[in-house]
Amino acid sequence: MARIALDAMGGDFAPIAPVGGALLALAELGAEHRIQLIGREADVVAALDAALAGEYSALSAHRSRVDVIDAADIIGMADKPTAVMRRPQSSMAIGLRRHADGLADAFVSAGNTGAQMAASVQILGLHGSLKRPAIASIFPTSLHTVVVLDAGANVDCSPEELVHFARLGFVYAEDILGRENPAIGLLSIGEEPEKGNAAVKSAHQLLSQTDLNFIGNVEGRDIAAGTCDRGPFDVVVCDGFTGNVLLKFYEALAPALVGMIARSIDADPHLLMKGLAHLDYSNYGGAPLLGVQGVSIIAHGKSSPRAIKNAVNVAVRAAESRMSEHIGRRLGVTD
Amino acid sequence: MARIALDAMGGDFAPIAPVGGALLALAELGAEHRIQLIGREADVVAALDAALAGEYSALSAHRSRVDVIDAADIIGMADKPTAVMRRPQSSMAIGLRRHADGLADAFVSAGNTGAQMAASVQILGLHGSLKRPAIASIFPTSLHTVVVLDAGANVDCSPEELVHFARLGFVYAEDILGRENPAIGLLSIGEEPEKGNAAVKSAHQLLSQTDLNFIGNVEGRDIAAGTCDRGPFDVVVCDGFTGNVLLKFYEALAPALVGMIARSIDADPHLLMKGLAHLDYSNYGGAPLLGVQGVSIIAHGKSSPRAIKNAVNVAVRAAESRMSEHIGRRLGVTD
Repeated sequence: MARIALDAMGGDFAPIAPVGGALLALAELGAEHRIQLIGREADVVAALDAALAGEYSALSAHRSRVDVIDAADIIGMADKPTAVMRRPQSSMAIGLRRHADGLADAFVSAGNTGAQMAASVQILGLHGSLKRPAIASIFPTSLHTVVVLDAGANVDCSPEELVHFARLGFVYAEDILGRENPAIGLLSIGEEPEKGNAAVKSAHQLLSQTDLNFIGNVEGRDIAAGTCDRGPFDVVVCDGFTGNVLLKFYEALAPALVGMIARSIDADPHLLMKGLAHLDYSNYGGAPLLGVQGVSIIAHGKSSPRAIKNAVNVAVRAAESRMSEHIGRRLGVTD
Repeated sequence: MARIALDAMGGDFAPIAPVGGALLALAELGAEHRIQLIGREADVVAALDAALAGEYSALSAHRSRVDVIDAADIIGMADKPTAVMRRPQSSMAIGLRRHADGLADAFVSAGNTGAQMAASVQILGLHGSLKRPAIASIFPTSLHTVVVLDAGANVDCSPEELVHFARLGFVYAEDILGRENPAIGLLSIGEEPEKGNAAVKSAHQLLSQTDLNFIGNVEGRDIAAGTCDRGPFDVVVCDGFTGNVLLKFYEALAPALVGMIARSIDADPHLLMKGLAHLDYSNYGGAPLLGVQGVSIIAHGKSSPRAIKNAVNVAVRAAESRMSEHIGRRLGVTD
């Protein structure tokens, strides 16, 4: 049983996308799961009524598993990361507090990412000796999906932080992707341990001494394949600068390449894009903020109802698998 | 008139690919250009004879513009970067020395990149206050080709080094790509000046104070487009770790995506790949090692004759445009 607190006011298409996403999620999830829509009560109820009277009329049976929780205030996309702490009546603050207080098992938002990160750290707290959480992003590859982290929460990373990312990614791959003894690669510019920048070279040494299934350095080309000379990998560890650049490059490159191909063979780009449907971020729904004591899922600001549904699914999986507990244990033992 | 010293022993397909590439290049270039094939004389002459008796028989008129320069020794792909200095009879050492001595106007090799870099610095020297050269790589984008540098020669970069890369890229874009007042972007994780790691944030400030056409930060997604909110750009500046990861990711991702599309729509991947022919590195032939006093072109280890031909073309353009002089002037004025 999981109770998911969903920010009804977060994202470019709020409250419609969160409301639709909640109904779609409940239709897929077992009857024991509930969703708490956090936002201005009148707006959320109106959006729910409109959804159930229109596009989502077939899902009205699931209305009874939606709780609307009033939150008078909204954190905007342009607000500073610290805004949530000064605005306790915002949907983000209320949703995270409910999770911290045990009234919800996870929090999901498509709102202001910086604010969600800062508030998650403040309200939920961090595990072990972590200084900051990490963002795990999913890269579809030729072989299978791979977790790349950090994807932007930490820019200048110490070797020790890179080792933390490896532990966080390991638990993510186990609990969310269902991989057994996930293989960890360290992103570098050559497979030899002495290749890389200073932080990566030290991290390579540190990772070799852990109990993790560390397969050594992987290169940019290996990420596209999901495998390297030493076999497949599940997790790619990198600093948040490199990870963020790669993630945004990947998201933009796929449609750009499809456009180039479509023009050259005079084909419909939409048809070609279908072959890359698994690249669509909305399949993956949300990126867990790893390292916080609890479950805080960052959904894309442009999330559709389907993307929100998948973010809720990730939240349920994280809550049910006790991912946060596993992270605490894995960081605690070894710190 | 340009005399190109070409390492006949460098690359996975030497001496056949360099010999074939030389003939293809001469067939395209004006009659005033000559190519010096540097390698074991007997092997090179045999490869030339075989090429002209076989696949390249239509090009026999160009044989007279090929000079074979004997070099008894070969630097292997697994040799250390310092090997060239200890082996003065290697094709790489002889080719670079000829260029340094004014007997050739440029040097091209598909051999050991680390060795070529080290030997180019030793034998040709560096401009101004540079500590290391930079590798310029070409990224095809939806709009036009963009120079990304550094692509792997410098891993931990100071803000000042990032500014050097901007100046080097500026001259490259002017002289090799023919762009007027090239626009420079700084790779970061957000467009605001305060986004990025420590080196990037400082470099942003420094670049704002130069006379370069600096358009501010660009993100991973912008590279795929070749343009951003502030307009198109010609050069992307980044440290060599990030640049190398991106370059290898790009090279591998295009065929991976094509494979995924081809499977989904049951199409011939080769047909789809034609639409991405402009992504093929062999179109761009070689990456100049920027910052050395002279022209040293790094060709891909897997270079085909066509890739070598294009690398020779880049060498001719660099020599004729006096790129190295322009770099010296641009670094000298401002250092």
